[in-house]
Amino acid sequence: MHSQMQELKRLLGEIKDIQSAAAVLEWDQATLMPPGGAAARARQLATLTRLAHERLTDPSLGKLLDELGPYESNMPHDSDEAGLIRAARYDFEQAIRVPAGFLAEFSAHASEAYQAWTAARPADDFGSMVPILERTLQLSRRLAEYFPGYEHIADPLIEYSDRGMTVAELRIVFDELRQGLTPLVKAIDEHPPFDDSCLRRTFPEQAQLAFGREVIERLGFDFARGRQDKSPHPFMTGFSLGDVRITTRVDEHMLTQALMGTIHEAGHAMYEQGINPEFEGTPLADGVSSGVHESQSRLWENIVGRSRPFWSFFFPRLQGVFPDQLNGVLVETFYQAINRVDKSLIRTEADELTYNLHVMIRFDLELAMLEGSLAVRDLPEAWRERYRSDIGIVPPDNRDGVLQDVHWYAGRIGGAFQGYTLGNVLGAQFFEAARTAHPEIENEISSGSFETLHGWLREHVYTHGRKYTTPELVEIATGKPVSSEPYLRYLRQKFGELYRL
Amino acid sequence: MHSQMQELKRLLGEIKDIQSAAAVLEWDQATLMPPGGAAARARQLATLTRLAHERLTDPSLGKLLDELGPYESNMPHDSDEAGLIRAARYDFEQAIRVPAGFLAEFSAHASEAYQAWTAARPADDFGSMVPILERTLQLSRRLAEYFPGYEHIADPLIEYSDRGMTVAELRIVFDELRQGLTPLVKAIDEHPPFDDSCLRRTFPEQAQLAFGREVIERLGFDFARGRQDKSPHPFMTGFSLGDVRITTRVDEHMLTQALMGTIHEAGHAMYEQGINPEFEGTPLADGVSSGVHESQSRLWENIVGRSRPFWSFFFPRLQGVFPDQLNGVLVETFYQAINRVDKSLIRTEADELTYNLHVMIRFDLELAMLEGSLAVRDLPEAWRERYRSDIGIVPPDNRDGVLQDVHWYAGRIGGAFQGYTLGNVLGAQFFEAARTAHPEIENEISSGSFETLHGWLREHVYTHGRKYTTPELVEIATGKPVSSEPYLRYLRQKFGELYRL
Repeated sequence: MHSQMQELKRLLGEIKDIQSAAAVLEWDQATLMPPGGAAARARQLATLTRLAHERLTDPSLGKLLDELGPYESNMPHDSDEAGLIRAARYDFEQAIRVPAGFLAEFSAHASEAYQAWTAARPADDFGSMVPILERTLQLSRRLAEYFPGYEHIADPLIEYSDRGMTVAELRIVFDELRQGLTPLVKAIDEHPPFDDSCLRRTFPEQAQLAFGREVIERLGFDFARGRQDKSPHPFMTGFSLGDVRITTRVDEHMLTQALMGTIHEAGHAMYEQGINPEFEGTPLADGVSSGVHESQSRLWENIVGRSRPFWSFFFPRLQGVFPDQLNGVLVETFYQAINRVDKSLIRTEADELTYNLHVMIRFDLELAMLEGSLAVRDLPEAWRERYRSDIGIVPPDNRDGVLQDVHWYAGRIGGAFQGYTLGNVLGAQFFEAARTAHPEIENEISSGSFETLHGWLREHVYTHGRKYTTPELVEIATGKPVSSEPYLRYLRQKFGELYRL
Repeated sequence: MHSQMQELKRLLGEIKDIQSAAAVLEWDQATLMPPGGAAARARQLATLTRLAHERLTDPSLGKLLDELGPYESNMPHDSDEAGLIRAARYDFEQAIRVPAGFLAEFSAHASEAYQAWTAARPADDFGSMVPILERTLQLSRRLAEYFPGYEHIADPLIEYSDRGMTVAELRIVFDELRQGLTPLVKAIDEHPPFDDSCLRRTFPEQAQLAFGREVIERLGFDFARGRQDKSPHPFMTGFSLGDVRITTRVDEHMLTQALMGTIHEAGHAMYEQGINPEFEGTPLADGVSSGVHESQSRLWENIVGRSRPFWSFFFPRLQGVFPDQLNGVLVETFYQAINRVDKSLIRTEADELTYNLHVMIRFDLELAMLEGSLAVRDLPEAWRERYRSDIGIVPPDNRDGVLQDVHWYAGRIGGAFQGYTLGNVLGAQFFEAARTAHPEIENEISSGSFETLHGWLREHVYTHGRKYTTPELVEIATGKPVSSEPYLRYLRQKFGELYRL
């Protein structure tokens, strides 16, 4: 079997090389590319995507995986080679279900939809998006239908980003969460929101960026194996385990935009930087799922980056960087400001607590559209209704309502949002397990040391890459199944204390 | 034939897409990539190079080109389609001569040689490079032998960068040039060198970069279709006709390093930005040859960028940027400083005049090694001997002698250097033709306007891309065959006046 394993790694390595090249081209497009490069870049990316897809669906890869079947089944489940064969087979079987022609059609439609959305959102023009979104919905349904046997039509779409999760399971987790969140949000709503004016002074860009770099370097982001650049929409991307990049954007009048965004993206990046180097060049050199990836960005951004111990260490440093803006501000005032809970319209700017309500609204509306119980043209009204009932605030227009997120306008309807809240849930579950094993973590954080936490995450989460599925990984890392209880415990404790509930 | 032309363009487009992706990865590697990305990047580039080579040597491409033969021969020579078929056939026939295994072997050796050189040069250790360079020489000879029928063994190697040029022809041009240059350099040598201390003050990096950008934007570099970044070794690269990038390096204690280097690379870039947009995605969307490419970098850097009219416009601006450093310096003093002729050891830092002597030494030594009349171990002594006789100065060590240029240590021996001097010759020939057609060009330059010159070059040189060979292009653009006379006329006039000869 040795020669077949070698051949498998060679084939997978070639696919990874092509995908990584495409990732470099996409990163460049989003950060530095001059406008004149756009047309050719789209063609170059289409070519690379096609070349990778041809190889990923090549029958010779399927044959090789079949031959390796008996070899794999004789190995323990936690063997790296078994994990590699499993991941490769999964990717192969997912890929061969969908005809390349359909993928190209969907991809072309998504590009056009994105272009249309970039004009429609500033113009507050949902009407022009209706026929486009109807086609997106139709294509999303067709995509799901290539995976017959599903219980809910959204299941195969959720599978794309959160393998192994289904509508049925997510509904259980989300319902528990909603039941826990609602009274908490209600109780907080009776208090006036904290004053966050200390975040809204003028903070020059270069100093913000330098402070952000100092913070994430301390958290464990390795600049010898990554870098940070600016882009209009922040993201993380990786070209290899030794080259994992993040981007950020800066608002000189809102301190948290770049700072918390940088910690968020660094959380994603530290995950990928921490994957077992033996997995380099294989499909295991990647995060497990959207939910697990988001667990790391949210854990570092919120559970660590909006905590009292964290700011007891960093706030004096931040004051050193911005003395005119922050001298005289108490660390408690700052802590309250970055944890201000408030009804708001925009998901990406929402506080840690109500953020999940924004996500769950989108999740439910996606399902309703896919089920056929909500027509695209009725989406704005359904959106307003849910914002009124769930958050208690109604968007005055579609720009800050149903047009606010790019997801539906640049890809499929279905599976786009659950990962964010799943990430909050899993992040708290991982953090609780780490703190149980190492109660000293909080004290370390307040002295600016993150090695124990980072080390635990590396050992129990990061190193495994894509070797396990999400439920397997959660079980291995925490000894328990996926549960929203640790997250609710964390929220009740933190916000109960903050708001003296 | 329409469908075959479409199929040809499709195949060529795919090759170009892969090559362009590789160029993005190389650019990123040279400018921004963190060190941790190196190993994976080498693998990614090897994969892309192999994929492009497989397609470039695919028999189906050869068959298609054969089928298109009659169609091509019925079209006029200046038809774009005929030019495309010619270029594609040339590339195909060049590529199929050399086995992919040999190319991979040479490429792996070149990488190792480059690594060894980066250590050997600072250590002044030519000895350790001898066996490596002997293997490079052997591989270079083997490469040439895949093209039997040559007159001189260097001819197929020169063909790689300067198609259609041979040792015999280059010797005629270079001999004429040497005969013209020698008395000129001798006469100047009797004068004390100009004082260039005004260039050696402290010029902060950001201001240097900003001034450089202002200059090249005026020359016609289009920042909407290109960008500039920093790298240790400046270069130009293109990912499409709408995305042509240059890099530069800055020495805060030598004003000309970044400034003249930026104009040089912008000259290369304006050439590619000026290629007929119809050629996008085909092998015609490229420069003709190393010599023609260098003609544009040297024309803009030297004939324009070191001219009196140029600085009569830009020097007051430069003084505005660096008042402390340059107020009180006369424009004539500055003009003399940037045109200081002096015996020097380093090619890349040599003045406009003696630069060619450096190139011709390398050209002759390459030929001697390939012919077998010079052994690699005797190269340092031969180098010193030629520097003594041709330039009148002897390097004290090999670091600033035979180890100074990367070319032989990162690629083949043969064909690496002639393009630089050929570029000087062709640049002067193009400029003379432009000025004959538009005598107002000099006056325009002194008022900071470059549109007539740039427009003439675009119309007569740039737009053609790779449609013609170098001799054809020179004939079309200037009405004359390649000749060193315009260059000698230019040098005699400029330096005769400067040194009152």
